[in-house]
Amino acid sequence: MRMKKIGILGGGQLGRMLLQSAINYPVETYLMENDATAPAAHLCHHFTKGDITNYDAVYAFGKGLDAITIEIENVNLEALEQLESDGVKVYPSPAALKIIKDKVKQKLFYQTHEIPTSEFVITKSVSDLNQHVAFLPAVHKIGNGGYDGKGVQILKQTSDFEKGFDAPAVLEKMVAIKQEIAIIIAVGNNKQTAIYPPVDMVFDPSLNLLSYQICPAEIPEKVFWKAEAIAINVVKKLNSPGLFAVEMFTDINGNVLVNEIAPRVHNSGHHTIEGNFSSQFDMLWRIMLDYPLGNTAKISSTALVNLLGDAGYNGAAHYVGLNEILSMDNVFVHLYGKKETKPGRKMGHITILSNEKQELLHKVNQIKHSLFVRTT
Amino acid sequence: MRMKKIGILGGGQLGRMLLQSAINYPVETYLMENDATAPAAHLCHHFTKGDITNYDAVYAFGKGLDAITIEIENVNLEALEQLESDGVKVYPSPAALKIIKDKVKQKLFYQTHEIPTSEFVITKSVSDLNQHVAFLPAVHKIGNGGYDGKGVQILKQTSDFEKGFDAPAVLEKMVAIKQEIAIIIAVGNNKQTAIYPPVDMVFDPSLNLLSYQICPAEIPEKVFWKAEAIAINVVKKLNSPGLFAVEMFTDINGNVLVNEIAPRVHNSGHHTIEGNFSSQFDMLWRIMLDYPLGNTAKISSTALVNLLGDAGYNGAAHYVGLNEILSMDNVFVHLYGKKETKPGRKMGHITILSNEKQELLHKVNQIKHSLFVRTT
Repeated sequence: MRMKKIGILGGGQLGRMLLQSAINYPVETYLMENDATAPAAHLCHHFTKGDITNYDAVYAFGKGLDAITIEIENVNLEALEQLESDGVKVYPSPAALKIIKDKVKQKLFYQTHEIPTSEFVITKSVSDLNQHVAFLPAVHKIGNGGYDGKGVQILKQTSDFEKGFDAPAVLEKMVAIKQEIAIIIAVGNNKQTAIYPPVDMVFDPSLNLLSYQICPAEIPEKVFWKAEAIAINVVKKLNSPGLFAVEMFTDINGNVLVNEIAPRVHNSGHHTIEGNFSSQFDMLWRIMLDYPLGNTAKISSTALVNLLGDAGYNGAAHYVGLNEILSMDNVFVHLYGKKETKPGRKMGHITILSNEKQELLHKVNQIKHSLFVRTT
Repeated sequence: MRMKKIGILGGGQLGRMLLQSAINYPVETYLMENDATAPAAHLCHHFTKGDITNYDAVYAFGKGLDAITIEIENVNLEALEQLESDGVKVYPSPAALKIIKDKVKQKLFYQTHEIPTSEFVITKSVSDLNQHVAFLPAVHKIGNGGYDGKGVQILKQTSDFEKGFDAPAVLEKMVAIKQEIAIIIAVGNNKQTAIYPPVDMVFDPSLNLLSYQICPAEIPEKVFWKAEAIAINVVKKLNSPGLFAVEMFTDINGNVLVNEIAPRVHNSGHHTIEGNFSSQFDMLWRIMLDYPLGNTAKISSTALVNLLGDAGYNGAAHYVGLNEILSMDNVFVHLYGKKETKPGRKMGHITILSNEKQELLHKVNQIKHSLFVRTT
């Protein structure tokens, strides 16, 4: 039986961990990425240097493969549509990606399917904002091209309007957030689903940045059932096989609102590498190789800390305090092998395994105070 | 800080899993192997097609690296010696490899250091065997070039002598084996050690092949202490940093005898990928990158089944019964991506996680009766 040929668009840390997981299975891997020194570039059978947003490049790369997936939404959609009609399996389906890629379409999708989400209006230009003063405080999200905090602005008062986007965008009424949670959910080729335990994403209020993640999230049972039902409903309506992260807000009234969907492996699922029997990466390979879905049950509770480039340091990465972290007993270090650090750049993550919440929090704290990515 | 450049000689499944583990750390990887389609060949930064037993090839490959390791003993020792004196760190040290590579030297090493091992004599030719009839039943092991069961003959009676080796070899008196156990032990650059829980290697008496492994081994406490002390003593006397597998026999009297040492990652440590906080592969990278040693404690008890090419099948590998195994809840599948199967070839392994011994044995049995590598 010949090995399946499967391609990945994008070569960052998500591609890196996907390929790490592929090593457990017989599969011939292909990767396209513009930077030949990207974290995942050396880990595939066949590397193509190319622009994943370019129609011709993506089509030429995908033609002849059995399946193709993405590690970032910003890829050439039209090429994926053509590949799909040529018979290449695309994860997620181009139709689902089209909805998710554009935050305006994504928000309208929730509305159409009565999926709970924050109140919003659609704006086409900065001047449109003046009609929605009553909406403040609000979050302005650009329709196309936003990624990892880029393309998002907090608008508290009318004087903030100048920070708004002069392009199609969503203006969302600010929610009184109690918790931000995420659920990773897998959809197989015959539509069966497998759902991971929810993750509590704890933000640093001063930096407006993810501080750490805990899995499973501590949420009331009713909220848990609601969140699971919503996640299942979202992927059912998207009607696409693949691996999805559904990010949600909860409020003090027990409401659950969908914030965003990612139609791919996601930061909020990195703890599954050690914490669950089948990781999110393993799961996506199972789907693409047409194997049975994996077991989403947890092996242990986990906490996860992202390792970001420290403020004020640009250049060759140096990991300060690494030995201390590597000496911790139930801690797993993942460094993405990026040569250059810059402020806020995702350079790695650290997973802690323990069924004692106090121990998880204690070690999160230790890690956040002793490990830094700087320069030499 | 520039990434360390580390090379591996050999590109089989051990190299594959080593490189899988390297993905967690910033390191520039090099690999030399004659077969460009070998299981590990596509997973390094820099692949060199070359003969690992050839002096010039190994020396050219290793020159300029920070460190070099092996996944098989049958490499060019003289080149490693030269590289070491040029300042390249070699894991294991060439001096230790020299002892282990040659089963005659290995056996004399045990004798010199009073490490318990089975009674033996050294033979130089088949005709030498006639002087040792009183030694029967015995095992004849060729000094150089044996690997994975090759280079070993069971000699029960004088008529078996013709199967013996007409080259320097060890004739070992057969031991009344109660159990075969293995201990993986790590030695850091500053000689600190970290020892993994012992593994019970259960053999199939009819096939004389490893049937499955259980970790931790069920052995009396006294035997456990003895085995640990022996493993520590062995690596202390070898006086080399690196990762070692010490294979031992126990007999009904509670004696522990060293059978063999492997100065590298080893099949008897594959369960550590999921079963222990730091796997044997992770541990070797920690040593080579001069990080602190990892935590050898178990996350769970494990069983491990090797997946061998089924008898009578030669050709493109096809995995019969794979979906059934992939549907099992606490089971991890590792397929090495070898395109061709042949009888007895190591094609993969399956790890089972459970703290219930009955469950481990039940699933071992299920796997052995439902998963086969054949051809299409």
